[in-house]
This record gives sequence, structure tokens and C-alpha cells, in this order.
Amino acid sequence: MRASRYLIATQKETPSDAVVISHQLMLRAGMIRRLASGLYTWLPTGLRVLRKVERIVREEMDNAGALEVLMPVVQPAELWEESGRWQEYGPELLRLRDRHDNAFCLGPTHEEVITDLIRNEINSYKQLPANFYQVQTKFRDEIRPRFGVMRSREFTMKDAYSFHIDPDSLQETYDAMHGAYCRIFDRIGLDYRPVLADTGAIGGSSSHEFHVLAESGEDDIAFSTESRYAANVELAEAAAPTGERPAATKDMQQVHTPGQKTIAAVSDFLKADPVQSVKTLIVLGECGEESPEPENAAPLVALVLRGDHELNELKAEKLPGIASPLEFAPEERIAKELGCGIGSLGPVGLKIDTIVDRAAAHLADFVCGANLDDYHYTGVNWDRDTPLGRVEDLRNVVAGDPSPDGRGSLEIKRGIEVGHIFQLGDKYSRAMNATVLDENGKEQRMDMGCYGIGVSRIVAAAIEQNHDDAGIIWPDAIAPFQLAIVPINMHKSDRVREKCEHLYESLRAKGVDVLLMDEPKARLGAMLADVELTGIPHRIVVGDRGLEKGVVEYKGRRDAESQEFAESQLEEVLLKKLDG
Amino acid sequence: MRASRYLIATQKETPSDAVVISHQLMLRAGMIRRLASGLYTWLPTGLRVLRKVERIVREEMDNAGALEVLMPVVQPAELWEESGRWQEYGPELLRLRDRHDNAFCLGPTHEEVITDLIRNEINSYKQLPANFYQVQTKFRDEIRPRFGVMRSREFTMKDAYSFHIDPDSLQETYDAMHGAYCRIFDRIGLDYRPVLADTGAIGGSSSHEFHVLAESGEDDIAFSTESRYAANVELAEAAAPTGERPAATKDMQQVHTPGQKTIAAVSDFLKADPVQSVKTLIVLGECGEESPEPENAAPLVALVLRGDHELNELKAEKLPGIASPLEFAPEERIAKELGCGIGSLGPVGLKIDTIVDRAAAHLADFVCGANLDDYHYTGVNWDRDTPLGRVEDLRNVVAGDPSPDGRGSLEIKRGIEVGHIFQLGDKYSRAMNATVLDENGKEQRMDMGCYGIGVSRIVAAAIEQNHDDAGIIWPDAIAPFQLAIVPINMHKSDRVREKCEHLYESLRAKGVDVLLMDEPKARLGAMLADVELTGIPHRIVVGDRGLEKGVVEYKGRRDAESQEFAESQLEEVLLKKLDG
Repeated sequence: MRASRYLIATQKETPSDAVVISHQLMLRAGMIRRLASGLYTWLPTGLRVLRKVERIVREEMDNAGALEVLMPVVQPAELWEESGRWQEYGPELLRLRDRHDNAFCLGPTHEEVITDLIRNEINSYKQLPANFYQVQTKFRDEIRPRFGVMRSREFTMKDAYSFHIDPDSLQETYDAMHGAYCRIFDRIGLDYRPVLADTGAIGGSSSHEFHVLAESGEDDIAFSTESRYAANVELAEAAAPTGERPAATKDMQQVHTPGQKTIAAVSDFLKADPVQSVKTLIVLGECGEESPEPENAAPLVALVLRGDHELNELKAEKLPGIASPLEFAPEERIAKELGCGIGSLGPVGLKIDTIVDRAAAHLADFVCGANLDDYHYTGVNWDRDTPLGRVEDLRNVVAGDPSPDGRGSLEIKRGIEVGHIFQLGDKYSRAMNATVLDENGKEQRMDMGCYGIGVSRIVAAAIEQNHDDAGIIWPDAIAPFQLAIVPINMHKSDRVREKCEHLYESLRAKGVDVLLMDEPKARLGAMLADVELTGIPHRIVVGDRGLEKGVVEYKGRRDAESQEFAESQLEEVLLKKLDG
Repeated sequence: MRASRYLIATQKETPSDAVVISHQLMLRAGMIRRLASGLYTWLPTGLRVLRKVERIVREEMDNAGALEVLMPVVQPAELWEESGRWQEYGPELLRLRDRHDNAFCLGPTHEEVITDLIRNEINSYKQLPANFYQVQTKFRDEIRPRFGVMRSREFTMKDAYSFHIDPDSLQETYDAMHGAYCRIFDRIGLDYRPVLADTGAIGGSSSHEFHVLAESGEDDIAFSTESRYAANVELAEAAAPTGERPAATKDMQQVHTPGQKTIAAVSDFLKADPVQSVKTLIVLGECGEESPEPENAAPLVALVLRGDHELNELKAEKLPGIASPLEFAPEERIAKELGCGIGSLGPVGLKIDTIVDRAAAHLADFVCGANLDDYHYTGVNWDRDTPLGRVEDLRNVVAGDPSPDGRGSLEIKRGIEVGHIFQLGDKYSRAMNATVLDENGKEQRMDMGCYGIGVSRIVAAAIEQNHDDAGIIWPDAIAPFQLAIVPINMHKSDRVREKCEHLYESLRAKGVDVLLMDEPKARLGAMLADVELTGIPHRIVVGDRGLEKGVVEYKGRRDAESQEFAESQLEEVLLKKLDG
């Protein structure tokens, strides 16, 4: 591409409404422009990147045996009523009516449409498994669109849906998709982790999210320093401490702690380490079925954690005996039934069901509330001073925790979710009666999987992970151009012009995506700034001074210093660099 | 692709709701499925064709220097209010509101969005001309969607928009787009015509439609047998007959024609040729500005055409002195002011402005109404019996008319509009104040062109033009697969299986789109029927009997008979056939 026939559209100023770096750089590098809240036009430079991501996604989906289809953006309400989602889905589902007043929505996802298609097209187990994907425009009416294309309303997604005769077949395709996703993100060149994810309300048996690691991520990812283990922090198991619990060395004493109600305050006051204390949280237990009055009827349950640990609500609410969703007991009820404020609670002498976190259960000589306002106990030991009872994993993991798979310890980083694979089971096939005939000629519901990639979000995530003060640093595979040729005074020097033109045409003929900066009066500094801002991985500067010496200056986008290469070997050297 | 891992989805029955052949065949060949009225899912076979069309369109747009962008499907109402189209556009514009009750529409076209983009991005005449395109999902809420993807509500369109400092530059890009469109349709392999089209209400200076010739087309296209001239019938000029008007040989006579009110009836009654008669139509003329009352104030104007010709209303309403849009005078007013019914009108003695069509003006000894009920004149001659006065082109051309460019005569065929290029002038740049600084640093409105291709419609149009009783006959360039390998009893014969597998892998490695019909128990007849129905241009049948003789059977989709090729030369022969 010649810059003189291209729309570079770079900007010097950082737009004031862009908060995250990828949004700022996509605007500054002339990749996108805002049309309205959460709606963006992709300019040529942005679209080139988007298309390269799309191509890699398509190739790997094809290689994994998925068949590409294209479903409509506009979907009839009837199908969503059949699945139940017309009612369930919140205002993110943009509903509309056509000229005949029939109800439709803009598709945020296509489970209903594909299930309807497949129940009509596939009748026999012999046609299974089947896996269909599309790369398509999706719409979600986010209440607060932000971060540019990272959380926009209209976006490009690759969504795939697989159909199976049994869960084993689903697992096989699920594993194949897991592999395909890894290849996709490997090829794009991202530092990512496939992480165990919550199956949430759908309750399928397995789900993984694919996160690009970046400081600006909205999710916390825990992953092992030694193994492939990775999980959303809220899902990562906090392994039980190894070894025996230390022996008691102190006596239990009641101490006066006037006005000290938090772990930090009590620890400060007692000059103790918070790690040597426990906190006690009171939540509602499950109601027995015979006492259907809510809240008051629910028994209280105490959850005991080490002072420096955070309760993981998701883990807690999954435990038998605890209400789901998790609900903390009102303070008045605690005061009335347990006899003290929430800052003075502790396990000693507590007359309700108590569940102790694994780490808290490993403490000796710890501090806890005395269930009496303004008093705590020190030197408390399990079993000796109070029964330990039930022990569970109740807390969020923290950095340094052992990896649950026993290999290495956990690091925690922020991640941007760019992919999600999901075993749906029969949620949709049951609601929409999608069956095939099995080997015995009997109707059987299909199992389903679904597999999404946020194609446009990948572009932003790649920038979040790869940038410096000068701008974007594209991984080679998705760079808008692989190489920029920057001439010095091309309009004045025939020699420079001929060299650049020749190299440009020669590399283009070899399939290289090359940008020739041929604007006649562009200043060298401005051109180099544009090349860096737009993140082109390789660039050369061609000038008379170098050509006289028979050399051309090369610099990789991540290089600190430029290098000189002999003119005679230039093309060969460049092709090598572009190749690897 | 292996059939065993593909979704062929062919159907034997012709769907009852499909009227046109392309719709029927796209359903039967497993290319599309209906989701709702005017909404279709593209199955793998259909999408393969669509993508090939898209690729050709993109390559030629890129070659012509247009830059690809991607604009949102959902567009804010504000921009449409700025251009005035929010009010002007009918109910085909699907309007909707987001969760914050802001008004949006689904884009049927993107003039507003691109004009808004460019007025912000381009400031100087030095950045012009510029031409941007996208391949994207469009939505038009047709009142009666029909003919499958030919007139659907959601469809894929390539739309391009160019920006210019002056009309000359616009003309240059317009011509380049004309050329690119010809190359696109040539490469796809369609019989098409670029035809002069009406610029309609927008009133730009030039417009061409690109029509694929097919019996089921909705438009009549007139084109020369000898030259490249082609125009929509409503626009084609009816050239004046050459040579002198024949001399009068008869006297004018008033004859009694009781109850005869049509050209056919009068000609029958008088045993005359309708070609030797004229018909007289009364329309409203233009009101003078001083008499603003409508209708009654408008003078009457007589239009005189040869008996066998049809009035072209578009031509008539463009003439000075005639009301636009064209309006026929009410019969009561004719009776009152001209003294007879509409079946007895004629130019002789008529006291109102009269415009005579070129062909009617060339008649001698003709028949016309006598402006007296139940009476006609015979043997009428212009000038001798009644003044000829003003002569204009008033009629639709008919087959056999001379081509207006003087070369050959006109043929008329039906066409399907698949492309439209348009000089918009400053319609949008004026309404939306899209200016650049010119050479003198003065703000100047940009001129615009727009260029559309109905990508999904091309797929249907190609079928309308290329099919037979067995199914679709794809032009090679857009066939879903180039070649089908059909084995006989592959599951029983190692020799057949090995031959097929080897050829399949070898051709695939060479980039050939090949379908291996490897369903173990498929019957030969059923496989061949599928291959023909889906229109695969080339197929071979591999069986033990042939292999024993060292031959394989080949048949091109348009061939009447199959041929045998030596096994040893097969691949070479096939590659040659696939190449062209």
C-alpha cells in the first residue's frame, strides 16, 4: 500500500474520553472512529488487523472440522420465547419491531437460531457430531459501553455450536475446540491462559475462558508458575496447607479490645500479625422445606477465615447448608441471637453451625472475637479451646498459594476474556425439542457445546498487552502492515525513489504487506512517529547518505537500536525477519 | 472437503413457497434456509459461493484503489435527521430504540455515516479523491420480501463512497468504478449489461445499473445487437425514423366507428394496421406560477403516439410544459373541454398544445380519432390536414428499434439489477456540510459518488442465468466446489478408495476446492444427482471397472456426454480443465 493512496489518520492528541490504553491507541493510530456510544467504524488500518485475526480464527476452525455458516443478525422473537430467553435476557437484548409489528431482536448470540436450524436439518445420530461456526456482527445493548471496541455494543464475534449424541462426543469436540483456541491465540502471538470458568446458571459440566494477560483486564486470573493450571480467581481452589497443624504454645486469654472491630485494628491494638487471627462471618443457611418463611426462618451459619484472607462467595454458596445466592445475616439478627456486634464474633462458644476455611483450620495460638462486644481471645487453639468441626475451601486464593494441581505456586494477574468455550448439555435441545434418532430408532435429545471468540476484542487485547510510549507493538501475525519503507526526500532523490519503488514492488509481489511512505513532503520524524504509533513490526529508512555507503537502516519495533544492512542483502534479510 | 464431514443438505422436493428458480434451487441445493420472512441462514454450500463472490469484489475494489472500512449496522438517528432522510425514507428503514430510548436505524445504506466520517477525517483537497468501501450486512424492511435472497430483508452488500474536489474528479472515479464493476462481473462469469439508469429524485448527473440478463428479471433492458449501448427500457432513447416522411396518397375522410374506442378495435373495424394509426393521450401541463390552484388550473396537453407504441411516462414528465409527476387528465374534464370521450381523440382540430412522438410524426395516411364520439378520420397527413408542431421522444423503445448510438438495433431482455453506480454530486455534502479547504484555502463542498453491489443477490442472479432441469450450473469462479470426486463402492474397494484419497489430497494440496463424496453407503445415482443439483462444474466417477481399464470417467456440468481419461493423465487433464 502506498501512503499517498491510503488513509493513515493518526492523531497526536490522546482523546480525552478514552480511558484504557488500547482505546487511546486505536483512536490515535487511526484504527477506529466512534459513531455513537458503543458503535465504532473500523478505518482501513483497524480493519486490516481485524481481518487478519478473522483469517486465523477461520483457518483453525476449518482445520478443527467446524463448518462455516452465516445466520441473520435480526432474529425472530418466537425462537427466543421457545428457549425462554425472551423473558430471561435483560435489556442487553435489543428488541425491535418490524413494519408489520412482529417482534425481533438483534442477535447477541445464536443458540436459538442454530438449534432451530439443526433440529430441521439433522435427523440421525449418523450425522453427528456436527459443529457450525460463523464470524458475524453481534449486538449487545450494554448499559455503559466503554473501553472502545473492548466493550462496545456492536462487535465481531466468532461463535460456534456443536451437536452430539452423547456427553462423550461433546467432550471430544470440546477438547478439540480447546486445542483450536490455543492454536489461534498462539498464532496471533498473545500471552494468554485457558482458565477454568464458572458454568453459572446454565450448569453445564465444563467451561473454560481464554484470557489475554494484561494489567487493564477486568478479571483476576490465578495460574501456576510451574504447570498449565489456570483458573478465574473466584474458581481457583485454595489447597489445604500441608503438614501438621502447629502445636499450641499459649493459653487462651480474654483481652479487652475497646472499640477495635476490624482485623487490622485488633491486630494493631494487640501488636499481633493478622495472619495469626481469624474473622467470623455470619451468613444465612438453607431453609428447611417445612419452614417456608424466608430469612427469619433460615438458620445462621458462621464462616471462619484467616484474618488476611477474603471470603469467596461463589465457593461458599455452593456448599450444602448455605443459602444460594449467598446472603449475609442482618446485623440486628446477629446482635439479637449471638449477643454481640459483627466486630466481636469468633468461633469459641458459638452456638450455630460453623464452617472453617482450610487455612484458618491450620492455625494455632490465634486471635478471634470473644462474642462479647469489645473483647477478643488470644492464644486460641482448635479442639483444645473450641471444636474445629467442618473444614472447607472458603477463600479466594492469593499470590504465592500452592497450585491446586500440586505443581508450583499461584501467580495472579489480570486478564481480558477473549474466548469462552462451554458445554451446554441439553439446555437448548430440551427447551426447543431438538432430537435425532439414535441407533435404535428412538428419538434422543442432542447435547450441545458453544464456543465464542471476541474477534474485535482480540484486537484491543493485543494492544493492551503490546505497547510502549510510542504506540502499538503488533505481533507480526496481525500487524496491519508487516514492513514500512520510509524514504528520506523521495521527491528530491531519484536514487531513493527508485530504490524504494523497486523494493516495494518486489516485496509486494512476494506477498509481503508493505507500506511505502510515499507522501512527497512528509517529514522523516513524522513518518517514523506514524510507523511506531501504528505498530508496524519492521521498518527501513532509505536515504541518499546510506545508499552512498551501500546501506539501509533497519529497525524492529521492539529494538532499542537500529541496524544497517548492506543494500545488496537487504531484501533477503528483510524476508528472513518477516518470516520469523 | 469430505462429504462425510460436510452438510450437503440437498432436498428432492421443490419447496412450495419458492416461486423463482434460484430460490427453489438454493433451498434444494442446501445453500440457504429461511429463518423468518426475508431472513435467511447461509448453509456451508451457500456461504462458499457468497465468499467467492465477496473475494472477487474485494480484489477488484482494492485494485481500483478503494480502501476497505467497516461501518456499524446500527446507525444513530441524528445523522439521518441531518441528511433529511429520517423523514424522507419510508418504512423500509427499520427504526429502533436502545435501552436509553435513543433512536437508531438498521442501515439500508451508509451515505450519512461515511459523510460524517469523512468530514471529520479529510480536511484538504490534497487528500482527495478518496474512495471507501465495505462488504457488510444491510437491512431493508421490504413490505413483501420474496424470491429468497433476491429480495430479502437482511442481505450482504458491497457499498462504496467516493469524495472529490470537483465533478471531473468524480467522473474519473466513476469511470474507474464502472471498469471495476465490469471486471467483477466478467470474472464471476455472468452475462450482464451496464445500463444507463434514471438518476431519479437525487438528480445526479450520471448513473448506471449493472443487470444480469435473465428471464426472471424485474427490469426490461434494451441493448444494441452491435454496440455496447444498453439502457433501462424506460430510459432508452427511441431514435427518430430515418429518411423523409412518406408522401400523402389518400384524402382525409371522417368515418363512423360506432362503439370502437381502442386502437385494436378501431383497426379491426377499419381493417387497418395499428401501425398506421395514432393514439392521443391527454395529460396535465405545467401550472403557471401565477395560478397556484392545482389541477383545474393546469392546461391540458395532448400526446400523440403511433397506435402500436407505449407512452414512456418518465420521458414525458421530463419535457418542459408537462407536469411532473405525470398526471392524466380526468375523463370528465376531457369530455367537457374537448367535447368527446377518450376513445375518440385525435390531433386534427385539437385546440390544445400537442406533442407528437417521433415515430407518429413520421406517419402518412394515418387513422386517428375525430374528437367526436364514434367517429374517426382516415387518410390523415401531417401539415396538410393538421399542423405537426412539436415533435419529441415520447415512447418506450421496442425490440427492433434502431440503437440510439446508430449501431445495430435494439434487443430487449429482462435483467436483474446487481450493481448500481451513481454520481451523487453534493446532495449529502451540502446537507451535512462536508467541506475541505481548496487550493486557495477556501472551504469547498465535496462531490460524492456511491457504488453498490448486491453481493448476496449476485448468487441468486447467477443461478437464474445458469441452471437446467438437474439443478444449478455454477460459473467456475464462484462454484462452491470446483470438482467432485465420486467413488463407486469406496467402502468395498481398496483400489477405488486409494485412488480417490490420493487424488483428493493431491488436488487439495494444489489449492483446488474439491469435494470427495466419501459417504460409505451413498448410492451412485444419489451422489451424481447431488453433484448436479449443487452445480459443481466438474466431476469424475472412479470405479473398479474403469480402473481395470486404466480410465476414469469425467463430465463437465454443461457437457451432454461424459468422457474417459487415462488414469495416468487424469490429474493433469483435470488441472487444465479447472484452470479454464
